[in-house]
Amino acid sequence: MDKIEIIETKMQLEADNDNIAQEIRNDLTKKKVFLINLMAGPGSGKTTTLVRTINSLKHKYRFGVMEADMDSDVDAKTISETGAKVIQIHTLGSCHMDASMTIDGLNTLGVDDLDVVFIENIGNLVCPAEFDTGAHKKVTILSIPEGDDKPLKYPLIFKVSDVILFNKIDVKEVFDFDEDVCKERILKLNDKMEFFSLSSLNGDGFDKWIDWLDKEIMSWKEANV
Amino acid sequence: MDKIEIIETKMQLEADNDNIAQEIRNDLTKKKVFLINLMAGPGSGKTTTLVRTINSLKHKYRFGVMEADMDSDVDAKTISETGAKVIQIHTLGSCHMDASMTIDGLNTLGVDDLDVVFIENIGNLVCPAEFDTGAHKKVTILSIPEGDDKPLKYPLIFKVSDVILFNKIDVKEVFDFDEDVCKERILKLNDKMEFFSLSSLNGDGFDKWIDWLDKEIMSWKEANV
Repeated sequence: MDKIEIIETKMQLEADNDNIAQEIRNDLTKKKVFLINLMAGPGSGKTTTLVRTINSLKHKYRFGVMEADMDSDVDAKTISETGAKVIQIHTLGSCHMDASMTIDGLNTLGVDDLDVVFIENIGNLVCPAEFDTGAHKKVTILSIPEGDDKPLKYPLIFKVSDVILFNKIDVKEVFDFDEDVCKERILKLNDKMEFFSLSSLNGDGFDKWIDWLDKEIMSWKEANV
Repeated sequence: MDKIEIIETKMQLEADNDNIAQEIRNDLTKKKVFLINLMAGPGSGKTTTLVRTINSLKHKYRFGVMEADMDSDVDAKTISETGAKVIQIHTLGSCHMDASMTIDGLNTLGVDDLDVVFIENIGNLVCPAEFDTGAHKKVTILSIPEGDDKPLKYPLIFKVSDVILFNKIDVKEVFDFDEDVCKERILKLNDKMEFFSLSSLNGDGFDKWIDWLDKEIMSWKEANV
């Protein structure tokens, strides 16, 4: 990794976010680039999960990452060590990525040499849920220390996501987190949700997530030949 | 607790938030009501901290709590068990409290019979930092599992807060959290910050925070006789 590009965007207040997002999705599908929007609260392990995911599949796919942050590039530097193509997006106070920021990001990143692009969204369970970024899949991490009541308090992000990764299972013995109860609460909001329990720190449970993700990408590619 | 009142507010987009906030502060000072804005990411222990704080000082002060949530009242129910006067504020999608929401909340709560009012803000390290609510003090919780890099990634909330509570020290042995490094990062953003390390779950370290808070309230009351 030579240099991390930094682009700065402003919150797009227009109501046509959804239309732009759909155009992004169509355009990326034509280009055979699979876009994943990775969301979570602060400190739930987005970057660690992303690093392990990329390292697990980089022999097979060429990865790009758009690192959204308020105002730093520490995560982009960490991610770049995987060899993935990385840009940093500074949202300048905005608490989420939207579709127009995603277009700016994709143009700066350049996707012609990529198979899979991740957006690492701002650490926030509220705002990112409200904005379609044009991603093909939305993955949300909920870490064990955050508590099993989060679906009650931040329902939207659980409604709109496709996959929940219960992260930090390596410390589950010291927290009062009832995974079954949490799943029930999430399934009431979204009965198509996929779940994986894992530790991005030590890799426990990671294989199942990687297998699933690999199959999703493969079947999406086959469906869009 | 008989019934938890629910009021619903909308995000106030006007730029005069700061003026309204200053009016709130002046008005509450006249009424000798001390307002504290409690902020943190999701799952860092705001509600547990609030319950233990109120239980530690309710023999001395009459507490009110405005529970801000996207769309639930689980926390308000928990808080009401302390005997504090509680209202639930539904922000209807907004990711923070602002000054006009605070006015609505204070009017609904009624402060004439109260000494101290807490806002439990939306679980979010981004948006709440941007809006002055009129509070006399801003307290932010950072829990050990979230990581010591949070001041690098969400600097504003550390700039604007008066106190940081490092919560969940009961599990610090299973996390790689360097408190000294984290304090240094915060002090670079705000060299007047007060710090307390505690466990709201088991009460470790809680006395020092309670002593400090008690003295703050007392000296504020004396200064505003």
